[in-house]
Amino acid sequence: MIALMEWKAQVERALESFMTRLDAPEQLRASMRYSLDAGGKRVRPALIYAVLDAYGVSRTKGDATAAALEMIHTYSLIHDDLPAMDDDDMRRGRKTNHIEFDEATAILAGDALLTNAFTCLLETDTSADIKVQLLERLAIAAGAAGMVGGQLDDMLGERGGIDDVEALESIHRRKTGALLVFAVEAGGILAGANEDDVVHLQRYGRHLGIAFQIQDDILDVTGDAEKIGKPVGSDEGNDKATYPKLLGLEGAKTALAAQVQAAEEAIDALSVEATTLKDLLDFVVKRDH
Amino acid sequence: MIALMEWKAQVERALESFMTRLDAPEQLRASMRYSLDAGGKRVRPALIYAVLDAYGVSRTKGDATAAALEMIHTYSLIHDDLPAMDDDDMRRGRKTNHIEFDEATAILAGDALLTNAFTCLLETDTSADIKVQLLERLAIAAGAAGMVGGQLDDMLGERGGIDDVEALESIHRRKTGALLVFAVEAGGILAGANEDDVVHLQRYGRHLGIAFQIQDDILDVTGDAEKIGKPVGSDEGNDKATYPKLLGLEGAKTALAAQVQAAEEAIDALSVEATTLKDLLDFVVKRDH
Repeated sequence: MIALMEWKAQVERALESFMTRLDAPEQLRASMRYSLDAGGKRVRPALIYAVLDAYGVSRTKGDATAAALEMIHTYSLIHDDLPAMDDDDMRRGRKTNHIEFDEATAILAGDALLTNAFTCLLETDTSADIKVQLLERLAIAAGAAGMVGGQLDDMLGERGGIDDVEALESIHRRKTGALLVFAVEAGGILAGANEDDVVHLQRYGRHLGIAFQIQDDILDVTGDAEKIGKPVGSDEGNDKATYPKLLGLEGAKTALAAQVQAAEEAIDALSVEATTLKDLLDFVVKRDH
Repeated sequence: MIALMEWKAQVERALESFMTRLDAPEQLRASMRYSLDAGGKRVRPALIYAVLDAYGVSRTKGDATAAALEMIHTYSLIHDDLPAMDDDDMRRGRKTNHIEFDEATAILAGDALLTNAFTCLLETDTSADIKVQLLERLAIAAGAAGMVGGQLDDMLGERGGIDDVEALESIHRRKTGALLVFAVEAGGILAGANEDDVVHLQRYGRHLGIAFQIQDDILDVTGDAEKIGKPVGSDEGNDKATYPKLLGLEGAKTALAAQVQAAEEAIDALSVEATTLKDLLDFVVKRDH
C-alpha cells in the first residue's frame, strides 16, 4: 500500500512547524500560508520520503528539504497565476493568492517563500558539506537553467508555437522536471546512497517527470472535468502544445509506456529494493486527476 | 581617497563573469543583465570590499558574495517597480525592466536573480561551514524577516500612514538595512574577523543604514532634482513618511549626525584601522544624489 497520505501529512507538519517559527509580518505570513495550505498532491516531498523509505532512513531526515521544496513549488504557482503570467483566478478550487489578497502581496509572498525555502533547507540535520550540495542543486534546479527558464520558454512557446516533442520535452524537463529530479536526488543524498544509485535515482526522476506530464496531457483529453479541476480539453482551446496534440492520443499513450518502462529499469538498477518508488510511479500514471 | 570606483568595477567584473557562465534562455539572460547593468552606486558590494580592505584580505575573496548581494538588490528593484507595486516606468534614467521587456519577463528575471544569487554565493572560495553561515544570514536578511517583510510593511504603511520614527525605522531596518548589515557582516566573516569585531561591524552597518535613509529623505527636500533623478519633494506629494516630515529638517539633520557618530564609534572599536569604512560613511552622508 502506498504511503502517500503519510508522506503528505509528514511534509504538512514540517511546513506548519517552519511557518509557525518564521519571523514575518502578519499579512505576509497569512498570504504564504494560504497557498502552502492549499494542498495538492505533494509529489515532490513524497519523492524524498519514498527514497528515504527505500533506504530505511528515518523520514525526519527529509523534513527540511521536503518543506523547502514545497515552498519553492508553491511560490512558482503563486507567480504563475499572476495577471501578467497565466492570469488564473482559481486554483485547486480556491481563489488564487492575488485574488484572495492582492497582486503586490502575492508577488512578495512568492518572493518570501522562495527566499526562506533556503533557510528552511539549512535546518536539515546533516553536515555543512551536504547542506551546500543540496542547496546548490536546489538553486540550480529552481533557477534560470531550470524551473524559471522553463517557465519563460513555455510562455514564449505559447505565443510562438512549439511543434516538436523535443522542444516540448526541453520545456517540461526544466519547468517541472528539474524539481522532481532534485527531489529524488536529495532523497538519495540524505539517505547516503552510493554514487551509482544517485545516478539511477536521477534517471528515475527524469522519466517519472516526463511520464507525469504526458499523463497530465492525456487527462486533459480523456479525464473527468470534476476530478482534474478544469474543463476537459482546455489545452486544446488555448493552442498549447501537448503530447496528444503532437503524437495523437495513442502515440501519447505509447510514449507514456516507454517512460514508465525506463523509470522501472532505473529502479531495478538500484542497490536496494525500492517498491515505494514503483508505487509512486504507479500512482502518477494511474491517477485520474 | 575612497576606492569606490575600484570596488564598483570589481563587482561589475564579478557579475559579468557569473552572468556569462549562467545557463539561461536568451530573453531571461537579457532581462537579468539589463537591470544588473543599470549601474547604481553598488553600495552593498562596496561595504564587503571596504571591510576586506580594512583587514588586508584580497578583494577577490568577496567577489561571489558581492555579486550575489547585488543580484538580490537588483531583483528587489525589478519587483518593486512592477505595476502592482510602485508602478515605476523609469529608474536611473532608463526604462524599468517591465517597460523594456514585459511584466511576465520582469517577474521571472527577478525570480531568477534571487534564486541564482545563491548559486553565485556558493562559488565563494571558502569552507562549507562559512558558505552555510553566509547563505543563512543572506537568506534571513533578504526574506520575510528582512527585506521582503520590510517592503510589505512599507507598502501597507503608505496606505495606512506611519506616524512615529520607531515605526519608520523598523521598516527601513528591514527593507534596506538588513542587506547593508549583511554586507559588512559577510565582509567580516570572509576576512576572518574575530567575534567582537563582527558585532562592531554589524553595529556600524545598522547605523550606516539608517544614516543612508535619513540622507535620502533630506536630499528629497533639499537636493538637486537632476542629480537625485526624481523631482525634489516627491516624497511630500505622495504622503510617504520620511524623517524630515516626522522630525522637521533640522531634526532630521540632528538624527543623521547621531547615527554617523554611532557608526564612527563602532569603527573605532574595531581591532583594525578601518579608514575605508570611515570613507564610506562620509560618502553616504556627503553625497548629493
